[in-house]
Amino acid sequence: MTTIATAATRRPTFDEMNLSTGKRTRLHRLMYEHGPANGTLMMLPIDQGLEHGPVDFFDNPASIDTDWIYRLAVEGNFSGIALHIGLAEKYQQKYAGRVPLLLKVNGKTNVPNDDDAFSPLTSSVEDAVRLGADAVGYTLYVGSPAQADDIAQCNEVRRECDRYGMPLVVWAYPRGVAVKAKGGIESLYAIDYAARVACEIGADVVKLNEPVWDAAGAAKSPKPYDTLEFSDVEGLRRVVRSAGRTLVLVSGGSKMGDEATIHKARIAMEAGCVGLIFGRNMWQRDWNDALSMARSMHQVMNDHGQDQA
Amino acid sequence: MTTIATAATRRPTFDEMNLSTGKRTRLHRLMYEHGPANGTLMMLPIDQGLEHGPVDFFDNPASIDTDWIYRLAVEGNFSGIALHIGLAEKYQQKYAGRVPLLLKVNGKTNVPNDDDAFSPLTSSVEDAVRLGADAVGYTLYVGSPAQADDIAQCNEVRRECDRYGMPLVVWAYPRGVAVKAKGGIESLYAIDYAARVACEIGADVVKLNEPVWDAAGAAKSPKPYDTLEFSDVEGLRRVVRSAGRTLVLVSGGSKMGDEATIHKARIAMEAGCVGLIFGRNMWQRDWNDALSMARSMHQVMNDHGQDQA
Amino acid sequence: MTTIATAATRRPTFDEMNLSTGKRTRLHRLMYEHGPANGTLMMLPIDQGLEHGPVDFFDNPASIDTDWIYRLAVEGNFSGIALHIGLAEKYQQKYAGRVPLLLKVNGKTNVPNDDDAFSPLTSSVEDAVRLGADAVGYTLYVGSPAQADDIAQCNEVRRECDRYGMPLVVWAYPRGVAVKAKGGIESLYAIDYAARVACEIGADVVKLNEPVWDAAGAAKSPKPYDTLEFSDVEGLRRVVRSAGRTLVLVSGGSKMGDEATIHKARIAMEAGCVGLIFGRNMWQRDWNDALSMARSMHQVMNDHGQDQA
Amino acid sequence: MTTIATAATRRPTFDEMNLSTGKRTRLHRLMYEHGPANGTLMMLPIDQGLEHGPVDFFDNPASIDTDWIYRLAVEGNFSGIALHIGLAEKYQQKYAGRVPLLLKVNGKTNVPNDDDAFSPLTSSVEDAVRLGADAVGYTLYVGSPAQADDIAQCNEVRRECDRYGMPLVVWAYPRGVAVKAKGGIESLYAIDYAARVACEIGADVVKLNEPVWDAAGAAKSPKPYDTLEFSDVEGLRRVVRSAGRTLVLVSGGSKMGDEATIHKARIAMEAGCVGLIFGRNMWQRDWNDALSMARSMHQVMNDHGQDQA
Amino acid sequence: MTTIATAATRRPTFDEMNLSTGKRTRLHRLMYEHGPANGTLMMLPIDQGLEHGPVDFFDNPASIDTDWIYRLAVEGNFSGIALHIGLAEKYQQKYAGRVPLLLKVNGKTNVPNDDDAFSPLTSSVEDAVRLGADAVGYTLYVGSPAQADDIAQCNEVRRECDRYGMPLVVWAYPRGVAVKAKGGIESLYAIDYAARVACEIGADVVKLNEPVWDAAGAAKSPKPYDTLEFSDVEGLRRVVRSAGRTLVLVSGGSKMGDEATIHKARIAMEAGCVGLIFGRNMWQRDWNDALSMARSMHQVMNDHGQDQA
Repeated sequence: MTTIATAATRRPTFDEMNLSTGKRTRLHRLMYEHGPANGTLMMLPIDQGLEHGPVDFFDNPASIDTDWIYRLAVEGNFSGIALHIGLAEKYQQKYAGRVPLLLKVNGKTNVPNDDDAFSPLTSSVEDAVRLGADAVGYTLYVGSPAQADDIAQCNEVRRECDRYGMPLVVWAYPRGVAVKAKGGIESLYAIDYAARVACEIGADVVKLNEPVWDAAGAAKSPKPYDTLEFSDVEGLRRVVRSAGRTLVLVSGGSKMGDEATIHKARIAMEAGCVGLIFGRNMWQRDWNDALSMARSMHQVMNDHGQDQA
Repeated sequence: MTTIATAATRRPTFDEMNLSTGKRTRLHRLMYEHGPANGTLMMLPIDQGLEHGPVDFFDNPASIDTDWIYRLAVEGNFSGIALHIGLAEKYQQKYAGRVPLLLKVNGKTNVPNDDDAFSPLTSSVEDAVRLGADAVGYTLYVGSPAQADDIAQCNEVRRECDRYGMPLVVWAYPRGVAVKAKGGIESLYAIDYAARVACEIGADVVKLNEPVWDAAGAAKSPKPYDTLEFSDVEGLRRVVRSAGRTLVLVSGGSKMGDEATIHKARIAMEAGCVGLIFGRNMWQRDWNDALSMARSMHQVMNDHGQDQA
Repeated sequence: MTTIATAATRRPTFDEMNLSTGKRTRLHRLMYEHGPANGTLMMLPIDQGLEHGPVDFFDNPASIDTDWIYRLAVEGNFSGIALHIGLAEKYQQKYAGRVPLLLKVNGKTNVPNDDDAFSPLTSSVEDAVRLGADAVGYTLYVGSPAQADDIAQCNEVRRECDRYGMPLVVWAYPRGVAVKAKGGIESLYAIDYAARVACEIGADVVKLNEPVWDAAGAAKSPKPYDTLEFSDVEGLRRVVRSAGRTLVLVSGGSKMGDEATIHKARIAMEAGCVGLIFGRNMWQRDWNDALSMARSMHQVMNDHGQDQA
Repeated sequence: MTTIATAATRRPTFDEMNLSTGKRTRLHRLMYEHGPANGTLMMLPIDQGLEHGPVDFFDNPASIDTDWIYRLAVEGNFSGIALHIGLAEKYQQKYAGRVPLLLKVNGKTNVPNDDDAFSPLTSSVEDAVRLGADAVGYTLYVGSPAQADDIAQCNEVRRECDRYGMPLVVWAYPRGVAVKAKGGIESLYAIDYAARVACEIGADVVKLNEPVWDAAGAAKSPKPYDTLEFSDVEGLRRVVRSAGRTLVLVSGGSKMGDEATIHKARIAMEAGCVGLIFGRNMWQRDWNDALSMARSMHQVMNDHGQDQA
Repeated sequence: MTTIATAATRRPTFDEMNLSTGKRTRLHRLMYEHGPANGTLMMLPIDQGLEHGPVDFFDNPASIDTDWIYRLAVEGNFSGIALHIGLAEKYQQKYAGRVPLLLKVNGKTNVPNDDDAFSPLTSSVEDAVRLGADAVGYTLYVGSPAQADDIAQCNEVRRECDRYGMPLVVWAYPRGVAVKAKGGIESLYAIDYAARVACEIGADVVKLNEPVWDAAGAAKSPKPYDTLEFSDVEGLRRVVRSAGRTLVLVSGGSKMGDEATIHKARIAMEAGCVGLIFGRNMWQRDWNDALSMARSMHQVMNDHGQDQA
């Protein structure tokens, strides 16, 4: 049976990433001036209202108020907050300078199905510059039948990022009918491919889901993925390697229990990821629980600092 | 059973909305210089000729003459009038300065079905500036299979609005085959989602329909909407919260009786909306009835003034 | 039974239309300096070669020569001639200044069916300016599934017309599968809607077909059109009202007998239209008949002059 | 039975065509300075490698070498050579100034079927100017379901031609499922329509195939084409008339015998065409045969000179 | 039976290719200053991560690290390395000037099927200039139903290449349902056509697969390909001729045995190709084997040097 690479990888340095002065300055703010400030990232995303609708806010009704999320970002000492232009314009002002902004520049609703998923632009890199953001986020649906439009649109965003020295964070999500047929969106095949695509098209950071071992799904994947078995940390190490000199953030996904959440964070950091971008697992809790979970995340991060070099 | 938020919400202030000087100046004209002039909005729309055809003018044949509508806007002391470029160019001149203009910048006919609804541009934000308008209106069909084109086009309009300091009013209408399958265009699920989308993509004001409780429709909606019961005011309070710092206007829809119309207005204001945009319920009446209904609306508005802060 | 408005309407004046100086100057040339020169319009269209192919030229073989058509325009004292860029470039020169040019800026062949009719651009408003034209013509297929592209394209043409002070004449033609299903392209429902659309999107003049009463077709139309009965003049009066401050031209359509042609012209003018745009009914005749018919049209026009105001 | 016009037509002069100085200068080079140099055109096309693939070069293997074709163009004293950018860039240099260049600016392969034929751009009018070309060629598939994109793209090319004074030669080819259903691509109906379309959209020269009389095909064509009978010369005379002041070039098509080729050329010139654009009938022969055929063509041309006027 | 041209062809010189100063300078670097430096090309491609996913890196796990590939390019003395923007930005810096860069400017994943294959842009010619690249690579799917978009996009890239003096290398790959139906992507019909298309649309260099003789596939190809038999070298000689003055690179494809790889290289050079672009056959080996294979390739190249002329 084919085996997968499992050796822990030192994260790429700014020098290795060959970052421009602007990108380096902004990533420095996110990684060494806010949040854990030790070279890791602890991002708080609040774009679920567009992606899933207000359903995600029922578990903790306070979370529907974006100002509550901002308070959590500040009190929980996150590295940055990730959201769309409408929220940035109307809620960032009070916290400007206190929590870095990652402007999500594309998105969509989940009302129609995801067979040919594609997220149009909701704002631009110029908007991000104007708002003092330190990064932009772009969702690329890897493997979607709409990939031609998606890669082309991402290329335009990348170009603007190069122009303005703005770090590009790619939400690299496998999607579409062909992905389903080849093992599904959580398969190692699909996420490993997504990691590599993000790297090749020029992402500075890639947001990935954790690959999930599932024999039935894997069997539908191309060789050698069809017979590859792996633990959680092995799966993540593999995708970290495929991402190359692109830093990896792990998504939180649906809400889990406290221990599972902390475990996922620890695994991610051990696998060589640069950090976490957990949303529902942070703010689908009441205030005290949320702050407590943020503290737990900081503890995990403390063990994984790395100099900028 | 999950319950929904029902506490009345103070409307967001201009400071909270972080409005630019241009947007603030123009919204001030609409909210504090015309109509009730107490921080509420009472808009008169006349875009039904494009959206539905002249069928809407049969009940009150005088209404086919846009000049009659303008007289109603002035005599009825509305906050503004909402229409397309053709009517603005040919009818606004006589009333310029007396009734603020909201230029509707996109629209379509209802001749083909709405399965993949999308409204192309009929004018631009620059046209609005040239005509001295105080806001633009954009129809976004939330959940339509054409959402990629729609969100992208809306983004361009938003960008121009930011550039010129023009308030953006989004007609956030759930539409398309997937919406039908998930409970329909009047379901709380759909309208709540639409409210949030408008907020996240950067609307200053969102025009929504009142959610209608319908057990059969709700059953098709995603959890927890499938079992949520609510009164009229509760439904609106919910969507007002989802809209966040985006002000909410309630649509009038098809003509109702006088009492139902006044009741709807009152409920809307109690739920925390900034105002009304009733068309057919205003001008599908003869002159005296229309003026009388306008006066009734003013009485409702008088109870819901709020300082600009 | 619902009745339709039948009172004759004074045509809108240039003041009421709020025309820019450029548009006013050019419409003045068409309406007060050429042809009847009394505020009416008698346009000669020769775009059938593109729209229908050379089939239309068999009845009068001389008509295939565009120079023959130009001679007719001059000798028959028409208000202007309407055609595409290729004919304008190669035939207008000899008659420049003697007969005003309306440049048709979009068109298509009728080889494929009309289910999703759409006419791409064949020239631009800038071409019209360069050629000394006094108006441009744009075909909008109201109700076509391709309406999104069509309205958007028309908007660009309108914007250029505003920029250069060029009058915009919209050929507002109901088309497409949904129109067929709701009563057909000659139904009052469809033409009334088309008239209103032209008005709302900013046409200065709209070219319409005469609505035809047909019980079977009407029965498929939305209320109240399904039960509306009307005479020829009543149908036209209705659409003239729906067009508001947009002037109405009536199309000639397929060739009719002499009396029917003159009757149609008279009815149109009595209904409040600004004039006629008869092609096949003019040039599918030999020279003497064509000139004679032109003289008959002038007689009709003479009874319907109106000051510019 | 309807009859078709058969009188020979004098070709339009430069004055009648109202050519700009740039277009006149370049057409003068093609028509009065190279090739027969008597007002006729004898063009040599070599775009079959893109349109059909290398299959066309098997009959005469030497023809795969474009330099061989250029030598033929020079030795055979052609009016010009027609090809795509890649060949122009790499083979024209040696013959620059000795044989005028017609740059074909769009094209496609014939691998997919022609149901919705459309040829994208392979170069631009600016490229033609840069390369010192004297004309550009554009393929328009008349009647294709893709006609909206095609006419729009052709309009852009025409605009650039006007801007730079570059003659526009339109390959007007009936294509697509609707054409098949109405009599086929060689029917008089289809070619006559194509001739007129080229004229109306602004072609200076149109390249047409010779209409072929075929009772079965004609029967499917619209009236009166369904019952029109015609000889070769009558068919061409008809389309020459439909092309109006657009000069007509006749395509050679698949290889025929020597006599048939010369007959076709003679018929074309008698019918009022300006010349020939024969490719396979020229270079699917060995060197001596090809030169001999070129001389035969010159003899035909000698009988049909016409002053520039 | 039809025979195919088999005479060896001298490769076109820079003079014959009529290269601009910029293109000549950059091709000189690739062909006469790096790698064999004798007028041949030995390119190392590493775009498989995007095109196929990380599956290609399992055979030699070290190959997932692009820095390893770069070391191979330098130590193996390749003429250049071919990859996408993300790898170029993050891995080229250390080797800048030591190994020339060919920036691949478009690509796609192979998750969806290839029925209507099309590769969107991942970067631009300007990016290539900024990064100091000596060529750009563009994948054109010849015969794909998406050919209209593909040819148009390639035209834009070609135009930019002309503007900046950047050599254009076209990956000319037959693809799509029609290609399958006519003999498949490895048929001589398809590859011969692809070679000619690349030449006609303006490629300076074309990357082709070796045509494979397969009676069953050929039988589905158009005449005379349906009955053409050929050896490996004959097939390549044929496509080299069809490519004309466009230099030909042969792809390596899936990994073969050592002897087969060397044989393929030798055949390619004997057939008149300018060089090789072998990826998996180079880096799906451990370090020593890879270097050894590179040396074998150099030996082949040594026999095929040609002066620049």
